Amino acid sequence: MADNRDGMNYAPKGKPAPVVKPGEFVIAAIALDHGHVYGMCNGLVEAGATLKWVYDADAKKVEHFVKEFPGVKAADSEAEILNDPEVKLVCSAAVTNLRCALGIRVMQAGKDYFTDKAPLTSLEQLEAAKETVRQTGRKYMVYYSERLHVEAAVFAGQLIEQGAIGTPIHIDGFGPHRIGDPKGRPDWFYKKEQYGGILCDIGSHQIEQFLFYCGVKDAVVKYSEVGNYGHPDYPELEDFGDAVLVGDNGATQHFRVDWFTPDGLSTWGDGRTFILGTKGYIELRKYVNVGMMDKTSNHVFLVNQDGEQHFEVTGKVGYPYFGQLILDCIHRTENAMTQEHAFKAAELCVRAQLQAERIK
Amino acid sequence: MADNRDGMNYAPKGKPAPVVKPGEFVIAAIALDHGHVYGMCNGLVEAGATLKWVYDADAKKVEHFVKEFPGVKAADSEAEILNDPEVKLVCSAAVTNLRCALGIRVMQAGKDYFTDKAPLTSLEQLEAAKETVRQTGRKYMVYYSERLHVEAAVFAGQLIEQGAIGTPIHIDGFGPHRIGDPKGRPDWFYKKEQYGGILCDIGSHQIEQFLFYCGVKDAVVKYSEVGNYGHPDYPELEDFGDAVLVGDNGATQHFRVDWFTPDGLSTWGDGRTFILGTKGYIELRKYVNVGMMDKTSNHVFLVNQDGEQHFEVTGKVGYPYFGQLILDCIHRTENAMTQEHAFKAAELCVRAQLQAERIK
Repeated sequence: MADNRDGMNYAPKGKPAPVVKPGEFVIAAIALDHGHVYGMCNGLVEAGATLKWVYDADAKKVEHFVKEFPGVKAADSEAEILNDPEVKLVCSAAVTNLRCALGIRVMQAGKDYFTDKAPLTSLEQLEAAKETVRQTGRKYMVYYSERLHVEAAVFAGQLIEQGAIGTPIHIDGFGPHRIGDPKGRPDWFYKKEQYGGILCDIGSHQIEQFLFYCGVKDAVVKYSEVGNYGHPDYPELEDFGDAVLVGDNGATQHFRVDWFTPDGLSTWGDGRTFILGTKGYIELRKYVNVGMMDKTSNHVFLVNQDGEQHFEVTGKVGYPYFGQLILDCIHRTENAMTQEHAFKAAELCVRAQLQAERIK
Repeated sequence: MADNRDGMNYAPKGKPAPVVKPGEFVIAAIALDHGHVYGMCNGLVEAGATLKWVYDADAKKVEHFVKEFPGVKAADSEAEILNDPEVKLVCSAAVTNLRCALGIRVMQAGKDYFTDKAPLTSLEQLEAAKETVRQTGRKYMVYYSERLHVEAAVFAGQLIEQGAIGTPIHIDGFGPHRIGDPKGRPDWFYKKEQYGGILCDIGSHQIEQFLFYCGVKDAVVKYSEVGNYGHPDYPELEDFGDAVLVGDNGATQHFRVDWFTPDGLSTWGDGRTFILGTKGYIELRKYVNVGMMDKTSNHVFLVNQDGEQHFEVTGKVGYPYFGQLILDCIHRTENAMTQEHAFKAAELCVRAQLQAERIK
């Protein structure tokens, strides 16, 4: 860990280890429409889960998945997985507007659900998901990867918890993404009803971070806007969006998301998070320390009464979420993430999208 | 200039030199309430202006000013300066809500006016200033120092003009400031009617940058908010504010300003500007490259199809505004800044302030 000053006061907690023995917590993957499902399964397998099954209607996607996870069995149908009493949790990355319906089927089969973000695309879906959670007692958990699966972001949570910046009062989040070859994306990526709009889709990461870092239980979307500034061939694609939220404790957030990562950036997006507190601030340069060309990531800058500190935490923090999630499923606790939190982030990203002004 | 890649395509234009000979363009300073007046006079003197007079009711402030600018004469009254036909332009940094009245007196005396930002604090003042400009043909120019007197910011304008990031579509601006010992500030700093509110005061820098970098002629303040999160002893101080603007060409801006620079930061504020374009983006770290502890400033990061580039431009760009302003005054041109631009930024910062929600 780099530290440019004496007296470093903060250090990452230890890297998490597997929390269960092989076979103790069996999971499956259904619906491989988004590549995030690999990260989701990786995280859980590293934390000790046993990945037993995979199912997708697209045999090619299944074939690729099986290569990544040798030992996983290709199921003949979704039902084969849902009917297996050994399976405790189903991971999925379906087309966004189909994630809720799948989750309801999973929970009704008595299993916990772990979906890629955004977890749903409408308030009606949210109500149905909540109702099914109430009825079944199962979990509808979400892979908000830009916090849960980024060591800089995990470390920021630890710093805030340790009081390093006092009370957080404002967050700025930038979520730029590279679109790459537009033709390399599936059709649903360009259909708003299916991907849910940019604020719902990649904005969901941002809102979840606001709730988490600022200790916000509820919030109001004060203003939001979207536009298509550079992709006229894809009229339903929103390539830019931003929003301002105010939390129930007075903390505020602005975030912007976009599909304008330049070709020359050395990674897919210069994701940033700036957390301003009453006693200091934190900047995260999650995936690149721009302009340094040193292939590093997970840069954390902390400024408070002790000075300016720079941490590079790749490989030093790990991802405690996954082990916590497994233990939550086993013990019916909520240490990884509460259901209320997961649903509140989902609700707010849908609301930000619904009330967004179309600027361009 | 540091460059981490081959093929650097962009370079600052040459440093400006004096544009007039000694005595050719005579200026004076009236009202030294804010230290910015030193920067304003420095900029003009470096560009060739002759600083003849200074006046302030506070003899101590005058004494200090005369030490900084040997050769300047202390006038007995404002009138002595306004009655001197040699004086072509009056620089001033009055208490914010008095800047307009002084400007009107200056213009009615046949001289151009150069005021610290914010140039005024109400729409009524704006109307009066506009009317006086119409009647007198004089200029009401503004020292938006965070762009005009920061080499990184000047260079960013050159990069955009050269097409380095395509069409600018969004700006994020952070204007954190250090309050220092709260008792070291004058009374008016804490009286909202006098300082104008945080969005009007330090927000004015931000809005001016939006208009300039994005080529915006007019804009709407879509949302703005202010709060006092950490200074209960000063209830009229707004220590945080932010706003979202949409320009007439579809470009958007979010900025936040605050008085929460931590004690441990190596300078007064980690001012940043992020300009997102259709073909790339620019980040400015104006006063510090946080965490590097190398005492450098004016860091410009440019990312586009050519890769990631890092420029450190201190001493390499200069401040063309001041020489342009002198020539504008002599030739009645508008190369430094148009009157419309100066007033539009003023109008929008007042509007952002007027419609701001009080969050905390």
